[in-house]
Amino acid sequence: MIRILGVDPGLAHTGWGLLEGRGNRLHHIDHGTIVTTPEEDPAVRVYKIFKVLKALLDTHRPQLVGIEALYFAKNRRSAIPVAEARGAILVAAASGGVPVRSCTPLEIKKALTGNGRAEKFQVQEMVRIMLGLESVPSPDHAADALAAAICSYHLHQFDRASGATSTPAERGTKG
Amino acid sequence: MIRILGVDPGLAHTGWGLLEGRGNRLHHIDHGTIVTTPEEDPAVRVYKIFKVLKALLDTHRPQLVGIEALYFAKNRRSAIPVAEARGAILVAAASGGVPVRSCTPLEIKKALTGNGRAEKFQVQEMVRIMLGLESVPSPDHAADALAAAICSYHLHQFDRASGATSTPAERGTKG
Repeated sequence: MIRILGVDPGLAHTGWGLLEGRGNRLHHIDHGTIVTTPEEDPAVRVYKIFKVLKALLDTHRPQLVGIEALYFAKNRRSAIPVAEARGAILVAAASGGVPVRSCTPLEIKKALTGNGRAEKFQVQEMVRIMLGLESVPSPDHAADALAAAICSYHLHQFDRASGATSTPAERGTKG
Repeated sequence: MIRILGVDPGLAHTGWGLLEGRGNRLHHIDHGTIVTTPEEDPAVRVYKIFKVLKALLDTHRPQLVGIEALYFAKNRRSAIPVAEARGAILVAAASGGVPVRSCTPLEIKKALTGNGRAEKFQVQEMVRIMLGLESVPSPDHAADALAAAICSYHLHQFDRASGATSTPAERGTKG
């Protein structure tokens, strides 16, 4: 069994989602969103994201953090504040000794739907089905965070199956 | 007197420079660079930047952090890792309660040379002259960090002169 915290980074809205995986079974634990407002100082906003992530890591002690990789071409305007939020999240994970698995948008779509060109609503519907939930987790940021968690779990399983003797998650000491 | 830590963010090289300002006088204290390598995990790299910044803040207790603002158009390829490093720096500053002053590249050039179109070497030579140093601080990242510190000092002075009753730096409790 491995516990995974998925994160969808954003300066205004950072989604998070926690699940456990055992073999082919996934179990949803919790999800939520960290909200900051433009009235707050930018440094205070990323520090808030860091603090909430740190508290989630301390409370739930996941063995892996899954997070979407950022590419320049996507969301051009918001790329810099999203990357600043992502930096705060990476610091929180590394300060807790929890390994981070980045998933590209293509990897997330493939892991959840088998189709790298799937639409966002299809990915979110698969999150609902794979976690046995009655409805798609809300808001979107939390559903996206759970999608990143599922993808990072699949990549972790793949690492194990492909004979890696020790993955970063297995070297983690927490949980 | 105000003590300012300037930072030039970068995933591989983050420059820092410490100075004190009193009226029109600037006094250079120290400068350096935080280096990380591509062999290290990205989360470990930004955490290293965070830790060194935090140690500098704890040791020197500046009342202000000056840092260059990032724009999408500049350094397009490296924008995302630079912004992730910047996020780690903002978390370090906010966690120490130190206000952050962002300076645009235009503001830095104007503050140091009076010319918003100045070349990089002209800005660096002005860093040398304004701080009374024998040579331009090396490496470039440290010189750029000192330039950000000087610019943020000037903007801070301007805030005071323009009648702001209380600037973030003055509300800082450290030092």
